[in-house]
Amino acid sequence: MITRSEVQLLRSLRDKKHREELGLYAVEGEKVVSELVAAGHPFEQIFATPEWAGESTHPVTAEDMARVSHFPTPSPVLAVGRIQRSELAPGELEKGLTLALDGVQDPGNVGTIIRIADWFGIDRVLLSPGCADLYSQKVIHSSMGSFARVRTLVCDLPRALSGLKAPVIGCALDGRDVRSVPAEPAAVIVIGSEGRGLSDAVHGLLTYSVTIPRVGAAESLNAAVAAAIVCDNLRRVRG
Amino acid sequence: MITRSEVQLLRSLRDKKHREELGLYAVEGEKVVSELVAAGHPFEQIFATPEWAGESTHPVTAEDMARVSHFPTPSPVLAVGRIQRSELAPGELEKGLTLALDGVQDPGNVGTIIRIADWFGIDRVLLSPGCADLYSQKVIHSSMGSFARVRTLVCDLPRALSGLKAPVIGCALDGRDVRSVPAEPAAVIVIGSEGRGLSDAVHGLLTYSVTIPRVGAAESLNAAVAAAIVCDNLRRVRG
Repeated sequence: MITRSEVQLLRSLRDKKHREELGLYAVEGEKVVSELVAAGHPFEQIFATPEWAGESTHPVTAEDMARVSHFPTPSPVLAVGRIQRSELAPGELEKGLTLALDGVQDPGNVGTIIRIADWFGIDRVLLSPGCADLYSQKVIHSSMGSFARVRTLVCDLPRALSGLKAPVIGCALDGRDVRSVPAEPAAVIVIGSEGRGLSDAVHGLLTYSVTIPRVGAAESLNAAVAAAIVCDNLRRVRG
Repeated sequence: MITRSEVQLLRSLRDKKHREELGLYAVEGEKVVSELVAAGHPFEQIFATPEWAGESTHPVTAEDMARVSHFPTPSPVLAVGRIQRSELAPGELEKGLTLALDGVQDPGNVGTIIRIADWFGIDRVLLSPGCADLYSQKVIHSSMGSFARVRTLVCDLPRALSGLKAPVIGCALDGRDVRSVPAEPAAVIVIGSEGRGLSDAVHGLLTYSVTIPRVGAAESLNAAVAAAIVCDNLRRVRG
């Protein structure tokens, strides 16, 4: 059983505005919820139909699930979590590798980049406030279990990147060859928006830019693809 | 003005079945249609509202566009093209670089891989019949202008890859380090399905597999991301 106010609350979590107000988000789907639970991700509530084999705090019927689901084809499970916002510790960006997303608006790209960060052992992912909302279902779906493992922070990028000793490396079309990137012990790799590239404020803070050598004619590479290639090249020289 | 039968025809192109029957496909959106037109892609009809600045064969009102559009928010332009299927020439796979997609079902991944192929100057992209339909809007949108430039072929992969002299390189979790891939003058790089990896039939035809070294804990990388990293590593040693 599910109350009318629960239906209202769960449905309202489709919108970022309501998620922010309530401090809650929802994620649906057997594969993604299983992976997050397996990764120890804390959920406050797990609504599930009898079809769901995992843990459930709120058993519901398939009809009730259809009322609360954000999708035309409801999954057997909808988990609700509390939004956790962390802050950068002083000096944090001087250590290890950081991916910073400057206005990456496509939620699939943001999620895929979180998964890439997890694969390459990147220490944290920063998101400018103009990026896709970290707690949208599309971001969580594309990042899968990596959402539970990668440290993510929403922050003012120009402020976070000002006065850093670690190099701030931009991904651009006119930089030095990414295949000769030096083995930076610590670095921030900045990925710009799909359409507009890097913002002026962030561009002014770059130590240098790198470019992925092009053989053919495509105008650009997808933001997540570019991020992955830079990570691969940096890990190759740096370990 | 747009006739009732035109409305029916254009709407029917949402479905692969109807696209195949009619031999036609539709693509909507100012950016993607502009890029394709600029790349010399042949369209048979271009339906456009007065808002569209480019060429148009069928001027229509915004109301008519809303009736034919495949999207909740119609764009000012909808272009119709004829499906072109090409066949592999004898010995074609012995020359240059080929990306072969074995059951890549996500249309965004298929489109992104076509864009990656364009960036890295890959000579052709093969798609198994189980891949997302090349002529779905989502594929064309994700590939952008690269859709017009990259040679794409739908074919029976095990048949196409049998008895090749060029190495067939799989992208897998248990192969040799992709960073030591040899400078193959010709090669076919096979990318498996997002969920199930390579099919048994294709797996049996591999010369060897490559793996992208993992530092963190993600279970896998997105298919397009993996394809891009293999292309980058092969271009690095091969030119």
